[in-house]
Amino acid sequence: MPRYGAMYGPDITFLGVDRCDVTDPGTFADADVVIIGAPFDGGTTNRPGARFGPMAMRQACYLPHDGSRPSLAMRVDALRDLRVLDAGDVQCYSGDVEKSIHDIEEAVHRIASCGAIPLVLGGDHTIALPDARGVARARGMGRVSMLHFDAHADTGDIAFGHLYGHGQPMRRLIESGAIRGDRFLQIGLRGYWPGPETLAWMAEQNMRSYEMTEIGARGLEECLTEAFALALDECEGVYLSVDIDVCDPGAAPGTGTPEPGGLSARQLLDSVRRICYELPVVGMEIVEVAPPYDHADITVALGNRVVLEGLSGMARRRKDAAGGTRWDPRQPLLDDR
Amino acid sequence: MPRYGAMYGPDITFLGVDRCDVTDPGTFADADVVIIGAPFDGGTTNRPGARFGPMAMRQACYLPHDGSRPSLAMRVDALRDLRVLDAGDVQCYSGDVEKSIHDIEEAVHRIASCGAIPLVLGGDHTIALPDARGVARARGMGRVSMLHFDAHADTGDIAFGHLYGHGQPMRRLIESGAIRGDRFLQIGLRGYWPGPETLAWMAEQNMRSYEMTEIGARGLEECLTEAFALALDECEGVYLSVDIDVCDPGAAPGTGTPEPGGLSARQLLDSVRRICYELPVVGMEIVEVAPPYDHADITVALGNRVVLEGLSGMARRRKDAAGGTRWDPRQPLLDDR
Amino acid sequence: MPRYGAMYGPDITFLGVDRCDVTDPGTFADADVVIIGAPFDGGTTNRPGARFGPMAMRQACYLPHDGSRPSLAMRVDALRDLRVLDAGDVQCYSGDVEKSIHDIEEAVHRIASCGAIPLVLGGDHTIALPDARGVARARGMGRVSMLHFDAHADTGDIAFGHLYGHGQPMRRLIESGAIRGDRFLQIGLRGYWPGPETLAWMAEQNMRSYEMTEIGARGLEECLTEAFALALDECEGVYLSVDIDVCDPGAAPGTGTPEPGGLSARQLLDSVRRICYELPVVGMEIVEVAPPYDHADITVALGNRVVLEGLSGMARRRKDAAGGTRWDPRQPLLDDR
Amino acid sequence: MPRYGAMYGPDITFLGVDRCDVTDPGTFADADVVIIGAPFDGGTTNRPGARFGPMAMRQACYLPHDGSRPSLAMRVDALRDLRVLDAGDVQCYSGDVEKSIHDIEEAVHRIASCGAIPLVLGGDHTIALPDARGVARARGMGRVSMLHFDAHADTGDIAFGHLYGHGQPMRRLIESGAIRGDRFLQIGLRGYWPGPETLAWMAEQNMRSYEMTEIGARGLEECLTEAFALALDECEGVYLSVDIDVCDPGAAPGTGTPEPGGLSARQLLDSVRRICYELPVVGMEIVEVAPPYDHADITVALGNRVVLEGLSGMARRRKDAAGGTRWDPRQPLLDDR
Amino acid sequence: MPRYGAMYGPDITFLGVDRCDVTDPGTFADADVVIIGAPFDGGTTNRPGARFGPMAMRQACYLPHDGSRPSLAMRVDALRDLRVLDAGDVQCYSGDVEKSIHDIEEAVHRIASCGAIPLVLGGDHTIALPDARGVARARGMGRVSMLHFDAHADTGDIAFGHLYGHGQPMRRLIESGAIRGDRFLQIGLRGYWPGPETLAWMAEQNMRSYEMTEIGARGLEECLTEAFALALDECEGVYLSVDIDVCDPGAAPGTGTPEPGGLSARQLLDSVRRICYELPVVGMEIVEVAPPYDHADITVALGNRVVLEGLSGMARRRKDAAGGTRWDPRQPLLDDR
Amino acid sequence: MPRYGAMYGPDITFLGVDRCDVTDPGTFADADVVIIGAPFDGGTTNRPGARFGPMAMRQACYLPHDGSRPSLAMRVDALRDLRVLDAGDVQCYSGDVEKSIHDIEEAVHRIASCGAIPLVLGGDHTIALPDARGVARARGMGRVSMLHFDAHADTGDIAFGHLYGHGQPMRRLIESGAIRGDRFLQIGLRGYWPGPETLAWMAEQNMRSYEMTEIGARGLEECLTEAFALALDECEGVYLSVDIDVCDPGAAPGTGTPEPGGLSARQLLDSVRRICYELPVVGMEIVEVAPPYDHADITVALGNRVVLEGLSGMARRRKDAAGGTRWDPRQPLLDDR
Repeated sequence: MPRYGAMYGPDITFLGVDRCDVTDPGTFADADVVIIGAPFDGGTTNRPGARFGPMAMRQACYLPHDGSRPSLAMRVDALRDLRVLDAGDVQCYSGDVEKSIHDIEEAVHRIASCGAIPLVLGGDHTIALPDARGVARARGMGRVSMLHFDAHADTGDIAFGHLYGHGQPMRRLIESGAIRGDRFLQIGLRGYWPGPETLAWMAEQNMRSYEMTEIGARGLEECLTEAFALALDECEGVYLSVDIDVCDPGAAPGTGTPEPGGLSARQLLDSVRRICYELPVVGMEIVEVAPPYDHADITVALGNRVVLEGLSGMARRRKDAAGGTRWDPRQPLLDDR
Repeated sequence: MPRYGAMYGPDITFLGVDRCDVTDPGTFADADVVIIGAPFDGGTTNRPGARFGPMAMRQACYLPHDGSRPSLAMRVDALRDLRVLDAGDVQCYSGDVEKSIHDIEEAVHRIASCGAIPLVLGGDHTIALPDARGVARARGMGRVSMLHFDAHADTGDIAFGHLYGHGQPMRRLIESGAIRGDRFLQIGLRGYWPGPETLAWMAEQNMRSYEMTEIGARGLEECLTEAFALALDECEGVYLSVDIDVCDPGAAPGTGTPEPGGLSARQLLDSVRRICYELPVVGMEIVEVAPPYDHADITVALGNRVVLEGLSGMARRRKDAAGGTRWDPRQPLLDDR
Repeated sequence: MPRYGAMYGPDITFLGVDRCDVTDPGTFADADVVIIGAPFDGGTTNRPGARFGPMAMRQACYLPHDGSRPSLAMRVDALRDLRVLDAGDVQCYSGDVEKSIHDIEEAVHRIASCGAIPLVLGGDHTIALPDARGVARARGMGRVSMLHFDAHADTGDIAFGHLYGHGQPMRRLIESGAIRGDRFLQIGLRGYWPGPETLAWMAEQNMRSYEMTEIGARGLEECLTEAFALALDECEGVYLSVDIDVCDPGAAPGTGTPEPGGLSARQLLDSVRRICYELPVVGMEIVEVAPPYDHADITVALGNRVVLEGLSGMARRRKDAAGGTRWDPRQPLLDDR
Repeated sequence: MPRYGAMYGPDITFLGVDRCDVTDPGTFADADVVIIGAPFDGGTTNRPGARFGPMAMRQACYLPHDGSRPSLAMRVDALRDLRVLDAGDVQCYSGDVEKSIHDIEEAVHRIASCGAIPLVLGGDHTIALPDARGVARARGMGRVSMLHFDAHADTGDIAFGHLYGHGQPMRRLIESGAIRGDRFLQIGLRGYWPGPETLAWMAEQNMRSYEMTEIGARGLEECLTEAFALALDECEGVYLSVDIDVCDPGAAPGTGTPEPGGLSARQLLDSVRRICYELPVVGMEIVEVAPPYDHADITVALGNRVVLEGLSGMARRRKDAAGGTRWDPRQPLLDDR
Repeated sequence: MPRYGAMYGPDITFLGVDRCDVTDPGTFADADVVIIGAPFDGGTTNRPGARFGPMAMRQACYLPHDGSRPSLAMRVDALRDLRVLDAGDVQCYSGDVEKSIHDIEEAVHRIASCGAIPLVLGGDHTIALPDARGVARARGMGRVSMLHFDAHADTGDIAFGHLYGHGQPMRRLIESGAIRGDRFLQIGLRGYWPGPETLAWMAEQNMRSYEMTEIGARGLEECLTEAFALALDECEGVYLSVDIDVCDPGAAPGTGTPEPGGLSARQLLDSVRRICYELPVVGMEIVEVAPPYDHADITVALGNRVVLEGLSGMARRRKDAAGGTRWDPRQPLLDDR
Repeated sequence: MPRYGAMYGPDITFLGVDRCDVTDPGTFADADVVIIGAPFDGGTTNRPGARFGPMAMRQACYLPHDGSRPSLAMRVDALRDLRVLDAGDVQCYSGDVEKSIHDIEEAVHRIASCGAIPLVLGGDHTIALPDARGVARARGMGRVSMLHFDAHADTGDIAFGHLYGHGQPMRRLIESGAIRGDRFLQIGLRGYWPGPETLAWMAEQNMRSYEMTEIGARGLEECLTEAFALALDECEGVYLSVDIDVCDPGAAPGTGTPEPGGLSARQLLDSVRRICYELPVVGMEIVEVAPPYDHADITVALGNRVVLEGLSGMARRRKDAAGGTRWDPRQPLLDDR
């Protein structure tokens, strides 16, 4: 049975939110969101270091670690308006991908089964398999759509002789029935991978992948709007997977497989916010933040903010649902304060 | 009495412009702009290092340090077309914020009193208080508006038990009457600070703060145009405060409190140029450039260029005023050469 | 006679493509493109290190070095659809600019004379002189136009008492008759160099230089379209010179003379791709990638992708010419797979 | 009144030892050692960053943070054999040296007054004044000798117009009567500071300073033995002050004023161990660890180990005192296990 | 079946020596030494990156990669005087420690079975198990002694629920009978790991571990001489395992678990040379070189030199054995040239 | 004709000493030492960057740049006790080794001809040729011996087809008759270069090279004493050439061709001091300090201190010669103050 708690360095929580214990569901019975770390990077095919992502993203903020983060833009304090807890890390031995996947999936499944939204801090993208499958098992296999931000499709079949790794989780998810291929929406792909055979497989699954060229030609907002419509068709929930390498390496140098030509940090933050505000997100992960390559700590800061933008979007969504209001991005900051 | 001269490393001037002595007004009687360093970083609440900003920004250029920088875009050589002098650094002991503020304010006030534009190289943002108050005392308390580029509002009340620090200067400026709250124009705010209480105070002062979400939705140009109109209402001069963290950390990693999702370097340069060209700037500062976190020296280069873009805008403004001409950003570089 | 082969570190080829020998034309008789390294950085006036550009750009990819790179966007595998070979490095002693220029020019000329497209990995921008002149001698002096991406005009006359260096190649090219001044198209200039005298000389040559201000005001696409029309007027081929510092230092910190306010990586990649797709490129170079300043290896990755985008554009151009098809940037990634 | 708790980042303890509260003496009544952070770096005259020393040194270990560290060499587990607690940080505003000094001194004094050994994590060397004075007030003014490891004498008089700063604490300590000048033992001085006037003052105080040249000529062990004899003459306790810059910059690059030619890390560790084993240490500090300049985290690791070597020496001293045994550095590791 | 060849980046050999193929014994039938990479870092418990060790150490030399390295000190050219081949990398998936161990062991065993000395480039220290067991299976279980340079004993039992990892190989080796416990000679241990239980187990095995305190007190040379006598007692061969963290972090920052207070680089090089000269080395490995933390590439250079010193010692041993001569470290460099 | 003045960045002098003009001998008629920069790195065969050595070493000190540096150990203030001036940089185009050599030699020769000691800040080691030849021409060809600290012999014949470069200056010096081969004393050589042919040539010249193995076996002090005797035989003056790579890369990572296993910083500083104190030094250089690889600025600090130790040794030599005293390294710091 895995140990739950901080795996590297001191045992801290995300910006000081309260702790919970994944092995004791009573400790998170009232949670809206449970943050959990998956410090596994044995699945990366290139630069490792994402194992330090959870520890780094939990700390990467210059404000007091007091469990409060009022969003200027969203006018909510997600860490307080929602019940957000931190379950620590799943013990992940990077040398054993199968056990790590198993243990992560159990932890995520427990959280999702209690009705909370698991928010997983990676780790490399290998963990998308247990993360999203753990959610789908709780919410309904094939009933959760996927919004996947990444430079890479991560739909490889076999790598280094293995089924599991950071380039293959999306194929495994579809094969397992956890996520329907035609509810798989990918944003930000670019570059030179995968090859035609894999792309053909993806097309057969009716996946919808927005490569950066299409995004550049049509605009990100239009692409997202189109994707959102698909996401909600015959699915009740959305899983949001953010690989930090969807951003341009200039904005996110601290990652394992940087691919030039990506989104700006602003675009990513706006997209995450919009998704969590407009869609019924039931699970989320932020992966591939690799501190050893992040010399001025700008990538870990971005990872931290991706989490907060997501949470803020969720909190505002709930608030507007309750109050019958609607968020207006054009509203001046100080209006109605 | 403070020592004036270079505080860290060798005693150099900004790109080789002539020296002057703040204690001897005769040395800058004919100056249009007097550059002065305020190497204080005792007020920062997170990563220090901005004390090395003045030394670094003065040097951060690969061209000869010959007191000449002909702008391709503006078709002026600001370091020659204007009389630009460098007064060295105000001696700032980072362990004594009150004395540092006092000494900086006296120096800036002397410069402004002689009719020159003080251009202050920070240092952390604590120095906005003495910088802008020194100018306002010379130009008229409440008669100078503020254009403030920053990720943070810097309107905190008390921090670490102190009134003075890099998160509070804007409140102190308004409280002191140096700058009217309703002539305080903030560009680029984002993230999770300050909280509702401080925002309420800001709203009461009728400040106008353009958060990045509004900027993204409406466009930076439109926001600036709107702000410019406010800036000139009942004010004769504009003080331009540039915190380098208004830029995205990808473009400005070398800073103390990086907040993802900011402006591009291009946007900042264009904005500074436009302000100095279109508005009667009477004081300017560039702060929070922290060389220890700037591993490839790109942030100090940006700081240096912010200074030059500002000066070039001012020089072109004067030239066009004299000649009845108008700068056209669409003019091809080699036309009319 | 120069040695041809890898100059620094192990003797590798660009992502594993086949080798050829510049001294033996039979080895590249069937080549479409011959990659060659010019590890010279003796001509840089500031931060050196571009000598390691060829070694670094050949390796800077996390995918298998297997001589295959299927482009998601262009739907070609340029390293296979074209016959791309790597001739290794021209031996360049950075302490002898004249001999280095001579030897590079001979190598490039041999490649171009056989009908292949030389693709030169720099090295500092000094090498544009031998690169483009070597091509022009083969294709016709004055019959090749220049598309030049750079923050700097590189049209200086004498520097450090020398005619040759990284700030002067474009003047030497025009003076030599290799490239017509009025077929010299510069994209991305900005900052404070060169001065009026040099700009006047450029205007006399009828060069067309798109400074970033004009690009910002008019849009990059419109500027490129305009430039393309000029490029094809009375010229049969285009030489594409990419100085990585055309990008903003945030995207390309690993370079010798970083100038804030440049293109995004996405803009550069799209432009290179478009040029190689729409225009008859007969030579190409990517220069000023300086690994010592590239702490997370994002600039070398960008340099590698500039090469691949160029090659992919060429390959697609040929494919569409053969098939009567046309590339559509708006086509979804998985359509027609 | 100062806040006690973690000042930067999460609220953690040194390698997971138990917490205590300086404002509540009951929480550390049974402590042998109380660790406390003093994250002040406003007193540094050059590179800042030591404010992050406490946070970094508490974390800088790859072993589980479980409050246990069995020393191979000393055969004790100091974190368990002694009662070691962590009181968090004294809130230190780097912009206010006087208040920071006051608050640190009060905290240290409280700890020492209860009979525990304060172990202070700096912070710059300014804090030696409140640290050692706080101890001396509890143990007897002039009754505690000083063992001071440093490249610099830190006996300056006035700097930047101030009495307090990282170059002056030792003069203030002697002037205040806290430490007798002739019980001030300095190890590792070198370089070019201070000048003759200050050295004359030091000589007048009968200080004993071992410059690296003497240490090289006579051997560190002999110098230490000589110093130990002085330390115990008319003093009942020893205060150990370790400025990490006593080590060569190769071993400790992450510091504010690196001076080439220092001790090896091995020499420092052995010396600290020997002092804490052979002498009655009543207070200890480790200062000037500046993480921003510590790119591979080797200096923070060294700081962490200085703490542990000191604690292990103390624990073994107590064990041998109780058991009548004596530690033998030549004993093979596995003998008598 | 594993792929053999370069795993990361281009397919190169150690400084240009000839290639061989582990799957084809005929290709290395005449080899004296076969270099092979084991780019596995899934077993590290802290900072990963050693997977890039083989690629980096093969390249880390500023001299031509020409398969020749005449040693100044040893007066041999080991890469030529011995037949040294490079078999490339064992394909190691860091996410699967068991398969990686299996495949490495098979490869090493094949090499050793042919009579060649396997020289393994790690990778983390997990690989000592397959490396040394592969040799012992060929040379005789229990007939090969171990000389182990390391800051850590690596004799842990279970970590993260696993038998295999970088902290446990030495226990597994002893348990398996590959190496006798009383022929296990460890040099350079220090710090706070392992704890008493593990040390007791080590003592039971009659291991001989030289902690740095003993080395400091007695001298490294004396300790080595003592160890050599043990190594040759009832063993015909010696396996040399060098964990780069045996060196002080100042000399080897690029490693996963840096422990302050280690050997100097000079001490390590001299020791490796002496061992390979004086003892019948039948296998060797250099592990835990982690390039991501090696900002100026000094650790990879040291790793490269450890290999060369070892090879040079072997070559000189053979030469002296043939010629009846003896190497004299005091001989001036230019005598008898 | 070369320009003399600062070549990169601002025009500063070494720690604030007075300026002089090499083209005007009257400006340094009374100088004891003239510092001059030779920012040439076109001759390096590997990592460039030494061009920034002069600028960096002039600034690399945390003390006031006030033209005073009282040595603790030597009890002199060399910058005041001697007349030390700074002539700025020889303009060196790294792309033209021959002109750079010529211009450096002329400058050095002028200084030496006036009786002052030239102290040259490199630059790569190519400059040893003009430096030492310029001195020898003034002092007598063959009448100056060479003390050469380096990891490399720098006696190569031809490299990259050239006679001149950083690996060949010592051969050129001997060939030219400037320095006698049998008065060439090399300290610190190690590694794998040069090969037997070059070593044979060196032996023919009767050079005396102390490789690190001999130094380790005999002790550095004994080797130096032996070398000093040779240096003074039939020579009236000594030229001291310090390549910073003589130090171990841990102490000097910022260099072009780091070779593990070198001297400690302490050993180098002590040796330089001893040479300048015991021998009649008539010229000195410190080369191969490459700031781009010096991430915490410890190598530039070491370079600065090498200069100061040399100057302090010279100053004390003069003082003792005048006073009939003798420096005692064992004298306690505060004795006789």
